[in-house]
Amino acid sequence: MPGTVNRQILLAARPVGAPRPSDFKLVEATLPEPGPAEVLVRNIYMSVDPYMRGRMNDRRSYAKPWEVGQPADGRAVGEVMKSNDPRFKPGAIVSSMLGWREYFVSTGEGLTPLDRSLPLVSYLGVLGVPGFTGWYGLKEIGQPTAGETLVVSGAAGASDTLVVQLGKLLGCRVVGTAGTDDKCKWLTNELGADAAVNYRRVPDLFEALRDACPKGVDIYFENVGGAMLDAVLRLVNPFARIPLCGMISQYNLETPEPGPRYMMNMVGNRVRMQGFIISDHFDRYPAFLAEVGSAVKAGRIKHEVTVVEGIDNAVKAFLGLFSGDNVGKMVVKLGPEPR
Amino acid sequence: MPGTVNRQILLAARPVGAPRPSDFKLVEATLPEPGPAEVLVRNIYMSVDPYMRGRMNDRRSYAKPWEVGQPADGRAVGEVMKSNDPRFKPGAIVSSMLGWREYFVSTGEGLTPLDRSLPLVSYLGVLGVPGFTGWYGLKEIGQPTAGETLVVSGAAGASDTLVVQLGKLLGCRVVGTAGTDDKCKWLTNELGADAAVNYRRVPDLFEALRDACPKGVDIYFENVGGAMLDAVLRLVNPFARIPLCGMISQYNLETPEPGPRYMMNMVGNRVRMQGFIISDHFDRYPAFLAEVGSAVKAGRIKHEVTVVEGIDNAVKAFLGLFSGDNVGKMVVKLGPEPR
Repeated sequence: MPGTVNRQILLAARPVGAPRPSDFKLVEATLPEPGPAEVLVRNIYMSVDPYMRGRMNDRRSYAKPWEVGQPADGRAVGEVMKSNDPRFKPGAIVSSMLGWREYFVSTGEGLTPLDRSLPLVSYLGVLGVPGFTGWYGLKEIGQPTAGETLVVSGAAGASDTLVVQLGKLLGCRVVGTAGTDDKCKWLTNELGADAAVNYRRVPDLFEALRDACPKGVDIYFENVGGAMLDAVLRLVNPFARIPLCGMISQYNLETPEPGPRYMMNMVGNRVRMQGFIISDHFDRYPAFLAEVGSAVKAGRIKHEVTVVEGIDNAVKAFLGLFSGDNVGKMVVKLGPEPR
Repeated sequence: MPGTVNRQILLAARPVGAPRPSDFKLVEATLPEPGPAEVLVRNIYMSVDPYMRGRMNDRRSYAKPWEVGQPADGRAVGEVMKSNDPRFKPGAIVSSMLGWREYFVSTGEGLTPLDRSLPLVSYLGVLGVPGFTGWYGLKEIGQPTAGETLVVSGAAGASDTLVVQLGKLLGCRVVGTAGTDDKCKWLTNELGADAAVNYRRVPDLFEALRDACPKGVDIYFENVGGAMLDAVLRLVNPFARIPLCGMISQYNLETPEPGPRYMMNMVGNRVRMQGFIISDHFDRYPAFLAEVGSAVKAGRIKHEVTVVEGIDNAVKAFLGLFSGDNVGKMVVKLGPEPR
């Protein structure tokens, strides 16, 4: 049952460089009551994602900036507690864009009912926007074929866990990069990657990748940017494809660092590099959900999450994304799953 | 009539960094005689192209390296002088890959008869590989639509002269960059570019391009790389396309310089950047020749050449490409056109 207090997290200040805990503020508000045709939702899980760093800036971008003094928002999964809208029965599970708070009232707009036969937390990860992003970028832009070599940077991240596994299902040699030996072991032992490179430990990133990719690189699923992109561009095969999903190494820089030196290789090797933003492609979400949802149900895809407990730890979870605290999708659990 | 001496140019040494005159050697050989089913061709024009810098290296690439001590080669237009092959009558004009020499004997393989109603020199420029390269890169990869802004770097070069004019015919705002005020004036006054930026003279390349592109950049036809690419990446519009035709600023560097800092913009703006090598696409040459050949005949496309006289000036012409000595296509005239 709802308590009487609704805790939520506001943006307190716009960061310069790396965000800090003081850029956020946890506040208590009165629990809202649903009006006519409205529903009250209790959040169970909320998502923290690297792209939210961009929303802390007051800069025009594909995602609307958060407002200072207003609650942050983002993807969440919750339970309908009270409903004055016949489309949503109490007890129904819905996804929304109203994370970073324990409860909210909604007109129903932007709420999507979820199939409870799949793990609820997976709707923020492997079956949610992160998984969809990985699936779209790999399949539509990467266009992998069996026998090709796929490199995934930041491979223990939310989208990438799926990219690694899809690459293996499609018959690729898959090489992941990550920042700890434990993550690397997990990539090879649990997710089936053929090789993993700990970019923090190897003496020379280029040489380590070259050894891991004896036949060069055909597809590079890019999440990291910087030195990683530089190293991969020295290894690209003719007609390689580089879906640009993100460049987390660059998000907290005030002044961008010099870029990859080996751009020239893109000409001689006819490389295609393409940025994408998944919200342009939501029309493909049902196709994704059908394909990957059934693979998850059948146990052919592992869905990995790092769950942090309680809204008072949400900021820590978000900041941890930039130091690689997560294995798989990072989520915050705001309350218990319904029985 | 043929003399008795055939002058040709050998690769004398593989350069480190910028090529020098001493990397080549002009030698005299006896005029060859055609054997059975062979033809003797007198070269009239030969092409010098930036891509030939790569052929001076002993490095696997899309174009075969030249051999030290052997004649250089490249695109040429010549006249059949003697023929033991019924397919080629004396007086016929043919293109070949046997430039850098005054005469050659051929079995006919690799010879293409040319339509004499078009200017012969245009077959090395606007109607040859350079023009075809510009047409393919702009239309197939750049996919311009009316009202978009097209930036062409090194716009006074061989391919680019055509790219600028095609961009105008397609209804784009066209901005060219070049390294002298004369070239810039020529781009705007003769070729119809809406603006031109002298990259050597402007205090800030980014600001100059921003002023020239008030609506941002939708297509960037890339010939230059380095600082130019960096500046354009700060100006790209959503869904911009960047055909990578070449990066002449990088060809003579032994160690590649740091690359563009604004790669991140490719993600948020969903930019597609794609290298291409025109020899992959020769199946499209007839379509190109039909379209651009008739535009040249009708006077809707200007074809610009810088003609250097004599094989003894061929090396100077080639080296001049890297200091921007050419306006339009740089060719070397090896002998008179037939009456």
